[in-house]
Amino acid sequence: MHHPQAASRQSVAQSAAGILARLRVRRPRVHCITNSVAQNFTANALLAAGCLPSMTASAEEVGYFVSGAQGLLVNLGTFDKERREAITIAIEAARSNALPWVLDPVFVDRAPTRAAFARELIAQRPAVIRLNHAEFSTLAGGKPLPDAVAAYARTGPVIGLSGESDLVSDGERTASIANGHPLMARVTAMGCAGSALVVACLAMELDPFIATVAALLIINIAGELAAEKSAGPGSFAASIIDALYNLDGPTLIDRAKVS
Amino acid sequence: MHHPQAASRQSVAQSAAGILARLRVRRPRVHCITNSVAQNFTANALLAAGCLPSMTASAEEVGYFVSGAQGLLVNLGTFDKERREAITIAIEAARSNALPWVLDPVFVDRAPTRAAFARELIAQRPAVIRLNHAEFSTLAGGKPLPDAVAAYARTGPVIGLSGESDLVSDGERTASIANGHPLMARVTAMGCAGSALVVACLAMELDPFIATVAALLIINIAGELAAEKSAGPGSFAASIIDALYNLDGPTLIDRAKVS
Amino acid sequence: MHHPQAASRQSVAQSAAGILARLRVRRPRVHCITNSVAQNFTANALLAAGCLPSMTASAEEVGYFVSGAQGLLVNLGTFDKERREAITIAIEAARSNALPWVLDPVFVDRAPTRAAFARELIAQRPAVIRLNHAEFSTLAGGKPLPDAVAAYARTGPVIGLSGESDLVSDGERTASIANGHPLMARVTAMGCAGSALVVACLAMELDPFIATVAALLIINIAGELAAEKSAGPGSFAASIIDALYNLDGPTLIDRAKVS
Repeated sequence: MHHPQAASRQSVAQSAAGILARLRVRRPRVHCITNSVAQNFTANALLAAGCLPSMTASAEEVGYFVSGAQGLLVNLGTFDKERREAITIAIEAARSNALPWVLDPVFVDRAPTRAAFARELIAQRPAVIRLNHAEFSTLAGGKPLPDAVAAYARTGPVIGLSGESDLVSDGERTASIANGHPLMARVTAMGCAGSALVVACLAMELDPFIATVAALLIINIAGELAAEKSAGPGSFAASIIDALYNLDGPTLIDRAKVS
Repeated sequence: MHHPQAASRQSVAQSAAGILARLRVRRPRVHCITNSVAQNFTANALLAAGCLPSMTASAEEVGYFVSGAQGLLVNLGTFDKERREAITIAIEAARSNALPWVLDPVFVDRAPTRAAFARELIAQRPAVIRLNHAEFSTLAGGKPLPDAVAAYARTGPVIGLSGESDLVSDGERTASIANGHPLMARVTAMGCAGSALVVACLAMELDPFIATVAALLIINIAGELAAEKSAGPGSFAASIIDALYNLDGPTLIDRAKVS
Repeated sequence: MHHPQAASRQSVAQSAAGILARLRVRRPRVHCITNSVAQNFTANALLAAGCLPSMTASAEEVGYFVSGAQGLLVNLGTFDKERREAITIAIEAARSNALPWVLDPVFVDRAPTRAAFARELIAQRPAVIRLNHAEFSTLAGGKPLPDAVAAYARTGPVIGLSGESDLVSDGERTASIANGHPLMARVTAMGCAGSALVVACLAMELDPFIATVAALLIINIAGELAAEKSAGPGSFAASIIDALYNLDGPTLIDRAKVS
């Protein structure tokens, strides 16, 4: 874990290209407990990247699905009693099978019940938390500055923070990703799909810092490519799925803006 | 409230353009309790228009979301016990915060239990009811003619009635909107998205008659623009989101057909 | 039921064209109990083909919706307690009204609880089961070879099996459909939408073998047409909806590859 502070842009992008190539071939199963707003777009993003998604949130069967998968996403987007019960069972199944899982604490800034539940989940040690500025501030109690993110990550999971530039930190290494496009914020479930891709990359790469950088590079560069072919957020939502499907390693390496 | 019977086409369209401009800048939070079929498309329509949607229907947190929003949509598209409980809490939160809320009584013509629940909700005075001909006939017990719509609106909420031409009435003023396109009826959740835009406009404009006319003008004109670029309902669904994003005031005023 | 073993390609394709023409005119109501991942895409596929979809899964109203429909889809994609209760009521309503219903046993290969529930449903005699190879092997205990499919269909519902070629059998007649495109497997809910179209065709055609062949021809040929206009699975998902809307009988007959 004792890498130099600033990973070189070239090596990180090459790792990402390698992860993408493995995704295409190995086609990992990714189980997502996610909100009904995001399910369809998330499944299509995973399919486009090469993965095999499943989405059930039924307490009596989610354990079987997670046990047969290579990674788990827990997204709080909409939650009800049965979904919370399913989350508990799913995390237990991930732990028993030594599978990586990612927490996307959607909208914890909007309801204290949701923030409390997210804190319980964080105590169960996801590999990565992917979230936005408002969500980070709610959970970490401070501004989402690089130092604060690194400090928070030092004692817990790797953090993938979305913003104008994305920030990834495991407490020792910190990467800033300047790729992406403003239309990404105009399509619902874009962040959720990004979190699902983090799970997919974790299934291909043991180092959660590298896997998180790779996933965010993949979706952000797909976003840049999609924006070139879009007339607004509707056509963009379809184009970014096309771009995730068509993206190749050389393009990823060529366009990556990591510092 | 004592405006002349027939609002001038020009003044109504100019009000709509002003509301659209405010939406782009103020970006209101709109909370939607809506069916899982409609959630994704509704969220993307709101984002394209400039709003910030949220969609949770969990009874224990919906009050927080509504209290932090500028308006509420209650759509009956699919409903279960937890969703009905959430609706009760959400309306109470809207009332406490003096927020406008809109009822979309989807499919009340198909099940008497649903019609009975809609009548309970109407007794709690939404600002606007947006519905189609079959739904109006079920709730009002008559044909959806302009006089019948005005009579129904006189003793209750503003009515926004979808049809070949849309009809808006507050009992005193009645507007007929001849914009729109037949492909709008071939995309699921188009009406639900229209109802969500009514909430958004109510957050920008105190007069619910003007706000409802504005919302229906916005979505119908976006539909006309989208149809020009579509090969069928699939590409149309993406194009209308693009059109909602790109629509500007001069185009809205130029194309409005209000009488 | 005693047709010759191999239906002629021409006669089956002409039947399919007739069913498609009736769909456009009669616009049957199709009620779908399906998973939240698939609801939106399934509703849009049905609307594009000319049908009127409804999707509620609330136990207290689903009976009214099914009684007012011309056919029922039961899809296990995501299921919870309320949805299972709704399925029981919906099948009873279909039986009382002599309506055809179709089972799509999604992911029975992934959880034994789900396979057990599917077997209970099969005992209630759906008209058709539409499923993929892994699902067939789980339910029938063998490889999805033409002989095994015919043997399974002989004692139960018509089988519509998705694969590189689709296979339809009622135990006496077997058809192989070589239409389709690999991108169909990269869009979530494509199989679910196909199953919903089987319901729609059953509402127009009493012979479930002919109806199933027709539905799979319609969606597979729409898939071929869509692939010609797509840059990846995102644009493909929109294009196949366009193609379902624009497909006509002569094109269907011209492109059908049935043996």
